[in-house]
Amino acid sequence: MIKVSVVGITGFTGVELIKILLNHNGVEIAHLCSRSRVGEPLHKIYPQFKGVIDKAVEPIDEELLKESDIVFLALPHTVSAKIAKALFGKTKIIDLSADFRLKEPKVYKEWYGVEHPAFELLDRAVYGLSELNREKISRAELVANPGCYATSVILAVAPVARLLEGVVIADSKSGVSGAGRGCKEGLEFCEVNENFRAYSVSGHRHTPEMEQELKNFNKNITITFIPHLLPVQRGILSTVYLQVKKEVDFFKLYSEFFRNDYFVRVVESPPSLSSVKGTNFCDIYPHYDRRTKRLIVVSVIDNMIKGASGQAVQNMNIMFGLDEKEGLGGFVFYP
Amino acid sequence: MIKVSVVGITGFTGVELIKILLNHNGVEIAHLCSRSRVGEPLHKIYPQFKGVIDKAVEPIDEELLKESDIVFLALPHTVSAKIAKALFGKTKIIDLSADFRLKEPKVYKEWYGVEHPAFELLDRAVYGLSELNREKISRAELVANPGCYATSVILAVAPVARLLEGVVIADSKSGVSGAGRGCKEGLEFCEVNENFRAYSVSGHRHTPEMEQELKNFNKNITITFIPHLLPVQRGILSTVYLQVKKEVDFFKLYSEFFRNDYFVRVVESPPSLSSVKGTNFCDIYPHYDRRTKRLIVVSVIDNMIKGASGQAVQNMNIMFGLDEKEGLGGFVFYP
Amino acid sequence: MIKVSVVGITGFTGVELIKILLNHNGVEIAHLCSRSRVGEPLHKIYPQFKGVIDKAVEPIDEELLKESDIVFLALPHTVSAKIAKALFGKTKIIDLSADFRLKEPKVYKEWYGVEHPAFELLDRAVYGLSELNREKISRAELVANPGCYATSVILAVAPVARLLEGVVIADSKSGVSGAGRGCKEGLEFCEVNENFRAYSVSGHRHTPEMEQELKNFNKNITITFIPHLLPVQRGILSTVYLQVKKEVDFFKLYSEFFRNDYFVRVVESPPSLSSVKGTNFCDIYPHYDRRTKRLIVVSVIDNMIKGASGQAVQNMNIMFGLDEKEGLGGFVFYP
Amino acid sequence: MIKVSVVGITGFTGVELIKILLNHNGVEIAHLCSRSRVGEPLHKIYPQFKGVIDKAVEPIDEELLKESDIVFLALPHTVSAKIAKALFGKTKIIDLSADFRLKEPKVYKEWYGVEHPAFELLDRAVYGLSELNREKISRAELVANPGCYATSVILAVAPVARLLEGVVIADSKSGVSGAGRGCKEGLEFCEVNENFRAYSVSGHRHTPEMEQELKNFNKNITITFIPHLLPVQRGILSTVYLQVKKEVDFFKLYSEFFRNDYFVRVVESPPSLSSVKGTNFCDIYPHYDRRTKRLIVVSVIDNMIKGASGQAVQNMNIMFGLDEKEGLGGFVFYP
Repeated sequence: MIKVSVVGITGFTGVELIKILLNHNGVEIAHLCSRSRVGEPLHKIYPQFKGVIDKAVEPIDEELLKESDIVFLALPHTVSAKIAKALFGKTKIIDLSADFRLKEPKVYKEWYGVEHPAFELLDRAVYGLSELNREKISRAELVANPGCYATSVILAVAPVARLLEGVVIADSKSGVSGAGRGCKEGLEFCEVNENFRAYSVSGHRHTPEMEQELKNFNKNITITFIPHLLPVQRGILSTVYLQVKKEVDFFKLYSEFFRNDYFVRVVESPPSLSSVKGTNFCDIYPHYDRRTKRLIVVSVIDNMIKGASGQAVQNMNIMFGLDEKEGLGGFVFYP
Repeated sequence: MIKVSVVGITGFTGVELIKILLNHNGVEIAHLCSRSRVGEPLHKIYPQFKGVIDKAVEPIDEELLKESDIVFLALPHTVSAKIAKALFGKTKIIDLSADFRLKEPKVYKEWYGVEHPAFELLDRAVYGLSELNREKISRAELVANPGCYATSVILAVAPVARLLEGVVIADSKSGVSGAGRGCKEGLEFCEVNENFRAYSVSGHRHTPEMEQELKNFNKNITITFIPHLLPVQRGILSTVYLQVKKEVDFFKLYSEFFRNDYFVRVVESPPSLSSVKGTNFCDIYPHYDRRTKRLIVVSVIDNMIKGASGQAVQNMNIMFGLDEKEGLGGFVFYP
Repeated sequence: MIKVSVVGITGFTGVELIKILLNHNGVEIAHLCSRSRVGEPLHKIYPQFKGVIDKAVEPIDEELLKESDIVFLALPHTVSAKIAKALFGKTKIIDLSADFRLKEPKVYKEWYGVEHPAFELLDRAVYGLSELNREKISRAELVANPGCYATSVILAVAPVARLLEGVVIADSKSGVSGAGRGCKEGLEFCEVNENFRAYSVSGHRHTPEMEQELKNFNKNITITFIPHLLPVQRGILSTVYLQVKKEVDFFKLYSEFFRNDYFVRVVESPPSLSSVKGTNFCDIYPHYDRRTKRLIVVSVIDNMIKGASGQAVQNMNIMFGLDEKEGLGGFVFYP
Repeated sequence: MIKVSVVGITGFTGVELIKILLNHNGVEIAHLCSRSRVGEPLHKIYPQFKGVIDKAVEPIDEELLKESDIVFLALPHTVSAKIAKALFGKTKIIDLSADFRLKEPKVYKEWYGVEHPAFELLDRAVYGLSELNREKISRAELVANPGCYATSVILAVAPVARLLEGVVIADSKSGVSGAGRGCKEGLEFCEVNENFRAYSVSGHRHTPEMEQELKNFNKNITITFIPHLLPVQRGILSTVYLQVKKEVDFFKLYSEFFRNDYFVRVVESPPSLSSVKGTNFCDIYPHYDRRTKRLIVVSVIDNMIKGASGQAVQNMNIMFGLDEKEGLGGFVFYP
């Protein structure tokens, strides 16, 4: 049994990790740590877990944590990098924050507004988009788990990246859990429900992440990315508009690109959030519009699972040579 | 491995059964049968299952079905009884319809408006409220899986039934999945969303079921039961108002009553639907109001799981001597 | 034109008042005052009003306010009483807080936890349930606008109050706007959406208000009142369970009781929130259940309108001898 | 008083028209006609109207209708054209169906699959986008009220149409009321709620309408238009991606373009559906992204009001020389 610890369990990605790990047959949960609510049993924070798991919240203590085979960091950016620095080399790490996603400290500073707290580790981190970097992830000591929007857009674009001309337009719509747990202005029920809006129109932090990874396929890619807030709990749907050099059989091209990837399903009709909610799947629908000579690609993921904690566990499975699906069978959330 | 078949897979209880059985380590799904959509692969009906299960829908064929160790019937009432009749004695049966819940054919006719199609089996059926009838269920050939509302109210009342005076008032609120899948007037998004209403105010079919089972504890119980339609997908919350002969420590009384029941949690603050959504738990909160000398009991379940398919699998586990929790670990639906 | 001011415009009842007053042909909005955001144009707080009304927020200044013919106070309790004290006698006042609803300072202290800041005015305040106190309201200098839950329950019970025996059970369900605007724990989208719960089970502040007013009809009435939080923006539905001395034609009895009340509609089938959302109506459905000898009454209101700002304007119309409907024609919110 | 009749009142646009007309001081409702439910009082269909309007539904009778000064047709396409043909010349007509929007019978056949039933009237119809065609509308006998999506996209693009290069990409998201009233597969609560999807990806009927009208400004415009279904009742948000020949002050350009248009508000931050729900406003936010040299324009409308019945009344006001705002003050739906 792999000894696993989770640091940061009062947020949504932390609790989602615990749920998945409880269904995983190859792990044992060692420690659940947090900066707040130390000493409380988990079910005080999440009544859902009453009778299911008995652990209490522990403080973030390197000595405790380094006994784990792997530590998941589900913390705010900058906080995460500091703890990763302390743990690096002592245990494997999967970081769900943004801290190790961008390769350039300069770009990090530009988009996050602060100096990177552990830039010396940037070279050691592997960008954990499982389907694209499986090989590197399997040997990594530190995995930077991708952003939710980035996962949905990169998977939608990568198969045709080499065929692209011009700007990629990604119009993404996310459920509210993507904004995290707790009380934030604008996320009250009465502000979100029966409502819809674009946000970060002047620039969202996942944009450089998408460009960095897609430039591995095509140096000329730039992305116009506009995120929107959906009045639903979970799920991201990205509608991506692409200009391609020529028409090919895109369904076939996508299917072949992902032929070894259980968690990516290329589908023949537009997918909906409910196709993937509660699962680690990414469903992708490519459609070529001859009239306007545009390729339109729709992708859907569960932002909490493939967009965060599910992909983190998928990466852990890769790192430890387990079946990539282990722990990720789960329930779909339908109805 | 127990060979399991499901009859009726185009409705919500059928698909929920499949989801649970896929997570169950002791079963093998033999046949998925239906009156319609025969021959189609399951993922044509539910895109969620693409790549997860490859079976196609089969017709309802007794010869096929009797090879199963157990058959779940997820069919409309009367249809279910006829198939149960054909299969009885050849395989174990768990019927999720209302057909075998009421012991008196006369009462069935009164509430369902037709003669019972298999009244000779009524005596052979065990009412499958797992926590109350575990012993009988373990020996049953035919289990009548309880109604969703009935489960939430009976569990809330049973522990104090002997202490009651007068009428029980059960004010229940259910998510829309309780009304089944498919297009029905009044269940369109624009009619349900941002809306709320009472229905069946002049009499709901789960009332005689509740009274029948609670009379096992106290012959004098009658119930005023009013169901309401919540604009949510899943979950039932019942607020039950009871007049008791005397004040006792109700938290203790409930806790002791359910001390051997993993899936009933007596809780110390009012539970919400999100405490149990996606799980087979029933959370119960008893509160005595000294000012008005009333006992108020709030209970919550997931109507699709403890209120239908989860309890059905729990009953199967009891019938086959398996761990009652097997297959029912699942994901909670939070956030 | 009546000169009207609103004090407290950053909350939901304040903004709802403004919306109604903008549709009212007999008033002119004099001042919009608030403790915060002074100086900002209204559309900075509510983009809805851009181009519709140009006023900026003013501080709460007695000298300004006393030039108004009437002042609406849409403030938290205790804050409201202090301002009412300063304005009393100089202008008519409709207070939407709880400060002048309870006649006994002792009861106020018991439920609100503080000494009443202006108990000398309690005798001068009229409880503004328009249909029951029209006469007194027409002569009042200070109207205590009723609580939203209280409005829905009192109107449902008053017609039969004299026929009642025993405890009244009121099971109410409210939309989230009833909890007010702004960020409060438990009211985030991800906590309310797809969820449902009872709250204040051990005692809600509207209970003494209901009992006080219903005791005018029947000294022996006590109420068990349990509120629940619905995942909708607006609306209250109360299901009230009553024990009556004898069966009469309740539809007729209710219809006659409200024969002169435009805004109460006695209806022949269970009403839904959508019947009244966006309007000042209260729809009431009485149903006698012979089997259990209980009278069940379902009432619905829009908590923001008949439950707050609409009834406040209805009271203003009564105080100034205007058509009671003026300004309250409005839009229904359907679909 | 203008005598107004509405034909087709069992759908959402019909009932929305009635609501608006009830608030209009210059009209008298003559007849409410329908193909079904003839003879029933309106409040049997819409309990909201009980006590508000007493009219019963009448059959569609040309003799009756031609006494009206204006008739609104809120009917399915092809049905509408036939009735328009019978009434043309006898009364003014505003047609809310798609029948008279496209100028070319050939294009109509291509997108609607049938021969146009009254092509001889196509030249007589004015496309009723109030802000763009005010002059022609004022003299029209037959107004083709624009599609909801078309309204949101055309208003967003028109001001910069002459500056455009290449393809316009319009990613639109609509509430469910846009799909009409009544039971349709895929529009059940459990299919729409907590869900989101793109639809008509291979071509939506509003596309030729948008291109036809925008070609008045720039012959080279073609549009890639993808609509999506939001889990909300009302509202359309369109995010439009444009390639412009040069950077100018777009806020100024838009503000000047709409300087005489009360119902279009150019705004300085991204608008949300709640800014316009319940109103006839279209809020437009232009944002130039220097990094990718794209102009992004976000527009929002209430699909039932500015996208249908509100714009229809606005057009009526223009046709009869009334204040364009009459009847359209209304309530905003917030919270």
